[in-house]
Amino acid sequence: MPLSPEQRAEIEAQRAQSQPTRRVVAPGMEEHLYTAYPVLDHGFVRVIDYMGDDAAICQAARVSYGKGTKSVQNDEGLIRYLMRHWHSTPFEMCEIKLHVKLPVFVARQWIRHRTANVNEYSARYSILDREFYIPAPEHVAAQSEVNNQGRGATLQGEEAARVLDILKADSARCYDNYEAMISQEGQQGLARELARMNLPANIYTQWYWKVDLHNLFHFLRLRADAHAQYEIRVYAETICDIVADWVPFAYKAFEDYRLGAVNLSAQMVDALRRMLKGEEVTQESSGLSAREWREFEAIIREG
Amino acid sequence: MPLSPEQRAEIEAQRAQSQPTRRVVAPGMEEHLYTAYPVLDHGFVRVIDYMGDDAAICQAARVSYGKGTKSVQNDEGLIRYLMRHWHSTPFEMCEIKLHVKLPVFVARQWIRHRTANVNEYSARYSILDREFYIPAPEHVAAQSEVNNQGRGATLQGEEAARVLDILKADSARCYDNYEAMISQEGQQGLARELARMNLPANIYTQWYWKVDLHNLFHFLRLRADAHAQYEIRVYAETICDIVADWVPFAYKAFEDYRLGAVNLSAQMVDALRRMLKGEEVTQESSGLSAREWREFEAIIREG
Amino acid sequence: MPLSPEQRAEIEAQRAQSQPTRRVVAPGMEEHLYTAYPVLDHGFVRVIDYMGDDAAICQAARVSYGKGTKSVQNDEGLIRYLMRHWHSTPFEMCEIKLHVKLPVFVARQWIRHRTANVNEYSARYSILDREFYIPAPEHVAAQSEVNNQGRGATLQGEEAARVLDILKADSARCYDNYEAMISQEGQQGLARELARMNLPANIYTQWYWKVDLHNLFHFLRLRADAHAQYEIRVYAETICDIVADWVPFAYKAFEDYRLGAVNLSAQMVDALRRMLKGEEVTQESSGLSAREWREFEAIIREG
Amino acid sequence: MPLSPEQRAEIEAQRAQSQPTRRVVAPGMEEHLYTAYPVLDHGFVRVIDYMGDDAAICQAARVSYGKGTKSVQNDEGLIRYLMRHWHSTPFEMCEIKLHVKLPVFVARQWIRHRTANVNEYSARYSILDREFYIPAPEHVAAQSEVNNQGRGATLQGEEAARVLDILKADSARCYDNYEAMISQEGQQGLARELARMNLPANIYTQWYWKVDLHNLFHFLRLRADAHAQYEIRVYAETICDIVADWVPFAYKAFEDYRLGAVNLSAQMVDALRRMLKGEEVTQESSGLSAREWREFEAIIREG
Repeated sequence: MPLSPEQRAEIEAQRAQSQPTRRVVAPGMEEHLYTAYPVLDHGFVRVIDYMGDDAAICQAARVSYGKGTKSVQNDEGLIRYLMRHWHSTPFEMCEIKLHVKLPVFVARQWIRHRTANVNEYSARYSILDREFYIPAPEHVAAQSEVNNQGRGATLQGEEAARVLDILKADSARCYDNYEAMISQEGQQGLARELARMNLPANIYTQWYWKVDLHNLFHFLRLRADAHAQYEIRVYAETICDIVADWVPFAYKAFEDYRLGAVNLSAQMVDALRRMLKGEEVTQESSGLSAREWREFEAIIREG
Repeated sequence: MPLSPEQRAEIEAQRAQSQPTRRVVAPGMEEHLYTAYPVLDHGFVRVIDYMGDDAAICQAARVSYGKGTKSVQNDEGLIRYLMRHWHSTPFEMCEIKLHVKLPVFVARQWIRHRTANVNEYSARYSILDREFYIPAPEHVAAQSEVNNQGRGATLQGEEAARVLDILKADSARCYDNYEAMISQEGQQGLARELARMNLPANIYTQWYWKVDLHNLFHFLRLRADAHAQYEIRVYAETICDIVADWVPFAYKAFEDYRLGAVNLSAQMVDALRRMLKGEEVTQESSGLSAREWREFEAIIREG
Repeated sequence: MPLSPEQRAEIEAQRAQSQPTRRVVAPGMEEHLYTAYPVLDHGFVRVIDYMGDDAAICQAARVSYGKGTKSVQNDEGLIRYLMRHWHSTPFEMCEIKLHVKLPVFVARQWIRHRTANVNEYSARYSILDREFYIPAPEHVAAQSEVNNQGRGATLQGEEAARVLDILKADSARCYDNYEAMISQEGQQGLARELARMNLPANIYTQWYWKVDLHNLFHFLRLRADAHAQYEIRVYAETICDIVADWVPFAYKAFEDYRLGAVNLSAQMVDALRRMLKGEEVTQESSGLSAREWREFEAIIREG
Repeated sequence: MPLSPEQRAEIEAQRAQSQPTRRVVAPGMEEHLYTAYPVLDHGFVRVIDYMGDDAAICQAARVSYGKGTKSVQNDEGLIRYLMRHWHSTPFEMCEIKLHVKLPVFVARQWIRHRTANVNEYSARYSILDREFYIPAPEHVAAQSEVNNQGRGATLQGEEAARVLDILKADSARCYDNYEAMISQEGQQGLARELARMNLPANIYTQWYWKVDLHNLFHFLRLRADAHAQYEIRVYAETICDIVADWVPFAYKAFEDYRLGAVNLSAQMVDALRRMLKGEEVTQESSGLSAREWREFEAIIREG
């Protein structure tokens, strides 16, 4: 279900507003403000507000009286230093507020990140819309055979068709019955706080979600990761693109020292040093388990 | 679905264990340990572990070298003083770990309390059981006419029967289809992380939930309240009974200064003082809105 | 020590900046931005940034597509309802960032509020300024005789003079010695991370402190209270004045339902109802302890 | 100042107590309970209480009905997997409560770790003891020349002696004056909440500190690190020894994947792969800054 004309008009009205402020302004972020970026079949992410920019990270780290920036080059160096050495508090000085529409089963993963502020649309108070996530055919995947907690190859042919038919039919029937139960025509109508229990986890909900940049990076590191479930990863990737325009130095440091970085265990570092001295190291001689050795090989050989 | 014989045996084995410890022991809590107290039709609450007792609250408040208790009477007085004057940190020094089985729509409310630790059963990793919350007939209630966010009178006759039929039929069908989609007989089998999206919000999940006593009291104040949804309130009430045996002084203080207490606004206090001086105070002369006046009247006239 | 000319110039440069933004702007707050409001003898509070306004609280509570406001009157009613019924998450959607200069012993109380972000000036990394809090003569008070944790009457005459002499002399000597130890003239110079241990708790430090509105209200309720130590209360009061201009509806609701409100225990409510029915209630017949009875009398008779 | 005979007796009484419990018991931790392990010249760390053991981590990860352990070997494998893949919630299911005596300047660093519960000895309410941290001569170190935030070589001869003389004399004088100001002999006596401001940051304070295992590991990773200030590192190291006996599998995993591990940036991983293929990589061709290259060399060449 696309945005309604009223919703579009409200968003356009927000984008059209412009007022002077004494606060720091992040030009890259102003461009994104309020726009609903589509995610999955009915979801979106849109920025409602933000606080701070790259310079604000440095300003806080230096506890400055003024803007706190020295040169642009100094600022980038400082930000990279802070990220590399796990200084978290300066990044907490930036804040972002998002409006997100997402399936309930994705919301249930997302909410596990506790250091954030959330206002969710209340199905006790309001009636939910008839909107369900139905995966695109290329994302209807089999259970992974190697990872209990993941998916494997895309399902094909009749099996895939059957899955999609089931998801559509059950969503539709559950929603029809939800409407029938709460209807007040010719009957009292079931309480909404009860009726909602008939709705499956692919129904869409929405919330306002506010988080500081440090905790957002933590969320993105886990959820933009290749091991995250596809349906939450696409939200994380959309947010990554926005953050890259908001705080370009911080985002680049995040890419280099977190997203694209690897953690080597004490044993892996030891094996590595021996390899670099020319020694032949095997799993047996490394002290790593078979599983760790595979992970180690993937790190040092890939690419 | 009652506990399986294997589950009962595991719980009995836990209850049978007894080892010496140098830690403080709360006799009232030892009695509850591990027992699964039934809540709703398939849910339960059981205590897995705890830390501290009433004396531990005083010991921390006094930063003691020893047990930190003076006399039992002194301890109760101190605990009541701390509660009355909003000292939160001594209550944070007690901790409880629960295993809870609960419907997903209740879990979604519960998880909003962020200052706690949670490990939930993973439907990405595992297959959920066929267990759905179906309200008892006396809890199938109409939408409230005065409160958008609540329920009114119990539904009767055909309407109630229809609701129960719908809930049962949709739960059963959705679960049948969930099973059919993940089945690996004659097909690849859909990934569990996808199949779960077909399950409605009355399916049961379970988690380990750990929280300190201060934050538990905050949870109980909101969720054991008459305005909380019945389906979460029964969990809160079960926990209240357990806590009353664990830390009797602290629980009594919580009842007196939180659960049974009322908050009067500045205007209400002013109206009250005038009333006690014998003045006739009306809504108009009180400065309260009509809604606040009703709330005020309910406080001072009830009982 | 007043702000240096350089610091004044930096602040003026910040105040002079004005850029267009699509974000919501709180006019009352724009006026305060960056200005250093003096607190105590050398301290200050100044707003560095903010996010949101009264309307943003309603927008989040309604999970709106647009501005989320209906009428101004509706908004105020909603905000008062949310405050009265302990809804915390919509207030978390506003955020404020302050630069505060404050004595270390005040900072040690302040930091106990954990749900905030802090960057403190580092005395490991930098040299602290020679600035110490010396109370004004009217705040040099005796130990309270009724409250172990408070102060009583102002000290007079010689005793007061002696206290001020001691505080000044010890501060000066400790700082002289701090400087002497870290000096690199004619010696290596002690590490700053060690030298700082010679500085007394009335030395000033400074930090950037960022917090959401809900947690700020919690801080203000405890620290703008009459029982809070004077030296932190003046900071809280300064912040109260700023917040009143930033989110006037929310601040008024906070005054009515928190700052000026009272909490009556279950026993107090019972006593009250009996009194309003005309019954004579005494401490003995109330079930309240002597201490609680005094607190109760103060609530209902004052003013 | 050693423990007083009364304090020793209280600790001995705690250690002598033994009661049966149904809870899990960690034998290695029972041995440590209540004992005050000396740190610095007057400080200590002692365990007051704990919840959980290695098996409790697995039990929560598996959301078990019973003990949740399979075989000891399985448990260790699961714990190592959880640590390696950044699963934090199962480690949060263990909790520890410590009584710590420490200098105020150390307490000010320590408290920056916000996800913990704290009750500190109140200098508003009580009189502090005359106990100050005076570094041992081998820890009186010069400011580092390469690291603004660290110390270099040990000071020698007269300079060292002068530092120690200053620290001792200023501590003694400040405390004498603190006592003189609060004395009620022949005068009213200054309020304790004011008098404390005359005390330097090397005075000892004490607190009860409670934290879950995940957040404790985070604290230990930062504070047991070679870059942490010596005076907090010795506390972290003492706690490491205790934790190793409490949850041996989890602690070993922490050593391997956190304490002894390294984080390689995306560029470092790339350089490494090229090196392992036999390519000659220099700082210039690596894309690393000079500073990062030094850090990289230290990682791969050391040992």
